[in-house]
Amino acid sequence: MGGEVVKAVGAAADLVVAAELGPDDPLSALTDAGVEVAVDFTHPDAVMANVRFCVENGVHAVVGTSGLDPARLGEIAGWLGDEPGTGVLFAPNFAIGAVLTMRFAELAAKYYDSAEVIELHHPRKADAPSGTAAHTAQLIARAREAAGVDAMPDATTQELDGARGAQVDGVRVHSLRIAGMIAHQEVVFGTEGETLTLRHDSLHRSSFMPGVLLGVRSVFDHPGLSVGLDKYLDL
Amino acid sequence: MGGEVVKAVGAAADLVVAAELGPDDPLSALTDAGVEVAVDFTHPDAVMANVRFCVENGVHAVVGTSGLDPARLGEIAGWLGDEPGTGVLFAPNFAIGAVLTMRFAELAAKYYDSAEVIELHHPRKADAPSGTAAHTAQLIARAREAAGVDAMPDATTQELDGARGAQVDGVRVHSLRIAGMIAHQEVVFGTEGETLTLRHDSLHRSSFMPGVLLGVRSVFDHPGLSVGLDKYLDL
Amino acid sequence: MGGEVVKAVGAAADLVVAAELGPDDPLSALTDAGVEVAVDFTHPDAVMANVRFCVENGVHAVVGTSGLDPARLGEIAGWLGDEPGTGVLFAPNFAIGAVLTMRFAELAAKYYDSAEVIELHHPRKADAPSGTAAHTAQLIARAREAAGVDAMPDATTQELDGARGAQVDGVRVHSLRIAGMIAHQEVVFGTEGETLTLRHDSLHRSSFMPGVLLGVRSVFDHPGLSVGLDKYLDL
Amino acid sequence: MGGEVVKAVGAAADLVVAAELGPDDPLSALTDAGVEVAVDFTHPDAVMANVRFCVENGVHAVVGTSGLDPARLGEIAGWLGDEPGTGVLFAPNFAIGAVLTMRFAELAAKYYDSAEVIELHHPRKADAPSGTAAHTAQLIARAREAAGVDAMPDATTQELDGARGAQVDGVRVHSLRIAGMIAHQEVVFGTEGETLTLRHDSLHRSSFMPGVLLGVRSVFDHPGLSVGLDKYLDL
Repeated sequence: MGGEVVKAVGAAADLVVAAELGPDDPLSALTDAGVEVAVDFTHPDAVMANVRFCVENGVHAVVGTSGLDPARLGEIAGWLGDEPGTGVLFAPNFAIGAVLTMRFAELAAKYYDSAEVIELHHPRKADAPSGTAAHTAQLIARAREAAGVDAMPDATTQELDGARGAQVDGVRVHSLRIAGMIAHQEVVFGTEGETLTLRHDSLHRSSFMPGVLLGVRSVFDHPGLSVGLDKYLDL
Repeated sequence: MGGEVVKAVGAAADLVVAAELGPDDPLSALTDAGVEVAVDFTHPDAVMANVRFCVENGVHAVVGTSGLDPARLGEIAGWLGDEPGTGVLFAPNFAIGAVLTMRFAELAAKYYDSAEVIELHHPRKADAPSGTAAHTAQLIARAREAAGVDAMPDATTQELDGARGAQVDGVRVHSLRIAGMIAHQEVVFGTEGETLTLRHDSLHRSSFMPGVLLGVRSVFDHPGLSVGLDKYLDL
Repeated sequence: MGGEVVKAVGAAADLVVAAELGPDDPLSALTDAGVEVAVDFTHPDAVMANVRFCVENGVHAVVGTSGLDPARLGEIAGWLGDEPGTGVLFAPNFAIGAVLTMRFAELAAKYYDSAEVIELHHPRKADAPSGTAAHTAQLIARAREAAGVDAMPDATTQELDGARGAQVDGVRVHSLRIAGMIAHQEVVFGTEGETLTLRHDSLHRSSFMPGVLLGVRSVFDHPGLSVGLDKYLDL
Repeated sequence: MGGEVVKAVGAAADLVVAAELGPDDPLSALTDAGVEVAVDFTHPDAVMANVRFCVENGVHAVVGTSGLDPARLGEIAGWLGDEPGTGVLFAPNFAIGAVLTMRFAELAAKYYDSAEVIELHHPRKADAPSGTAAHTAQLIARAREAAGVDAMPDATTQELDGARGAQVDGVRVHSLRIAGMIAHQEVVFGTEGETLTLRHDSLHRSSFMPGVLLGVRSVFDHPGLSVGLDKYLDL
């Protein structure tokens, strides 16, 4: 991912790659090069030290490394308390389409009687459902609950085990593993006489780059800690 | 449509059909029956007199009749100026999914390099593209312009006439006419490595009913004139 | 269904409705009216007597009534042994698109590493998966086995119960129950770098009629018992 | 493409890469290495000499190079007349899914009132519609004509220029150019109450490899000239 970021930033007319750091480079290379925003797609073992250095040196950070649980995010928020002008964006998914799909699903949820999630991935994936699909289901469930929507209609009395999918907070999620696919998700809503389908297709890991660039450009305007790219979108 | 509305209101636990008016019934039947909200799916020739009677008698109105151009809407707004507690909702499309699709398309537009609209209808339809597809294209064009997005990439140099569709404010729209279909629309967005597709399927004219009921329940809270069901949705 | 058939036959320029029989009419009304082909969408309790009368009187029969198990089909074949010129077509599904989808799935199966089935129905359906989806999965499994295709790749090690769907002869099937939907099926195939999706949408029960008419027109050319509309298609 | 082929053949347990030739290598390197099947993805200027050498030396050939028009194919067939045991396969498209989609479209065509083609490609493509989409439309048109199917229903009287797409032999074709997409095609059929959709997605140029390998393995069994990968499929 690091190489993809360097390529994407390099190709952007309004941005400059001030420094590229490998795992063995000292963090001081960032400040030596006058870096304004650091992008971190490294490793759960390295990310906390990297972010701490950035915050303490007034360098904004855009972070896509996994492993930032609530405890770690709380720690980062603590550091930022002393540096009110600095921004840190952590996003578990930088694909803008994935973020939009989740937000639109959340907005649509209360207007429909039924909602289910289908996700389709390459067959090398170890977990089912995907984290994004599970999170989407949770957002739908929360929005339905907040609006006091009735339980979904379902007259199934005879089910071959697993046919109706997994339940995440009462929302059914179906996982397909298909050779040739990358990462795809469909959210299906239905009510009297009509259905609405939101589909997101990631065809290449470069799909993260527009989101990363948006983060780099916008982190200046969002001091403090932001979790999720949706905080930077006008939705 | 009138019959469908009566059926839908009758089936709703929190609503009562106080009166059903045919074309020859006097409007006073509304006030005689103590109607609080009138639903008008009548005719362009009748709708203005109907709405005027409602406004003058403090009856809220939910209107799906076509033929309300800006001049007529201005007239209705004028009447409402004297009746500040009364609400009139006029919506060209009561299918919630169509309204959500348009709104989501508008929100997504500025994050994508490319956007095109496909609409699929039964082959008895006289116009192409559909009004909803043309309106969706306009919303996308306006959102892109407001955000200063570059023109869409397109290297086409050899085109069989019509292959690239019609242009509505620079957004390509494609119309299919397929036996067995009802009314369907797809908005396709794409950027580096990913695509987002919003699809709305109307399978039956009852698809308008959830939107009409939403209008009936919410018009009390929206005094004055509202144009478009999206004004009543939390988006 | 009877009424739909009468309407469809009546609207066909090359066919005539010679007789309409209700549950209390004598079967002799068929021969009295000179009926050449009888269409039976009746009841499991009535269908055997109806078909027997047809075969014994040289009336071709097109049957969509459920409840014809192998034993009953064997009995019908026995009757037809004495009437070599008469044809009986029994089809569990008269929607041409469903039949084509199954046949195409069977043909495609051996060229793909992965294949899964998604079916989407209205939420009043009692069984999951649908009979058509289960049958499609069986056809895929049989075609893969006949061609000696390897097991499908799937690295799933962590699964939320049900996420990967039900297994029908080793093919995963996923069932969605969505308000507003009628009967829809998708078969998804994938291999290195590409996917193939076959989708069938039934939007109205009239979808059975083209298949019934095809049966009525073609039964003359297929003496004996035929099971499945695919026997009458050029595939 | 050459590199992709070497990688794919190298990864196949039952095949061996006997020789890799670059543009400057002598063709005799093929016979020196005992090559049984040559795969040619070269250049219109080089392909005829390559194929001639193969045929004259009893080496089977699988050819994906463009520029083989009917005149050139006739010339190759002439050479093969003297070498009845040798096979040459020329295929304009090696993606199995594209070949299956075309064949299934051809088979389904006569059962539907309406048929239209949508193709979606990256925006660097110069021609619209794609060659595959135009060819699919021709196959549909020919199958409808052979079966004596009526003209498609279409009540359009008001059309914004281009909305209804391009016409290829009377079949409407719609071309979308979307950033992030690769090569995708949808064939939509409809009749009374139902629709059938065939969709093919090419997500990577490796999608050609299963078709190339199939060609390499099967060319032994198909002496003479074969045009189109469908000749090697059981359809």
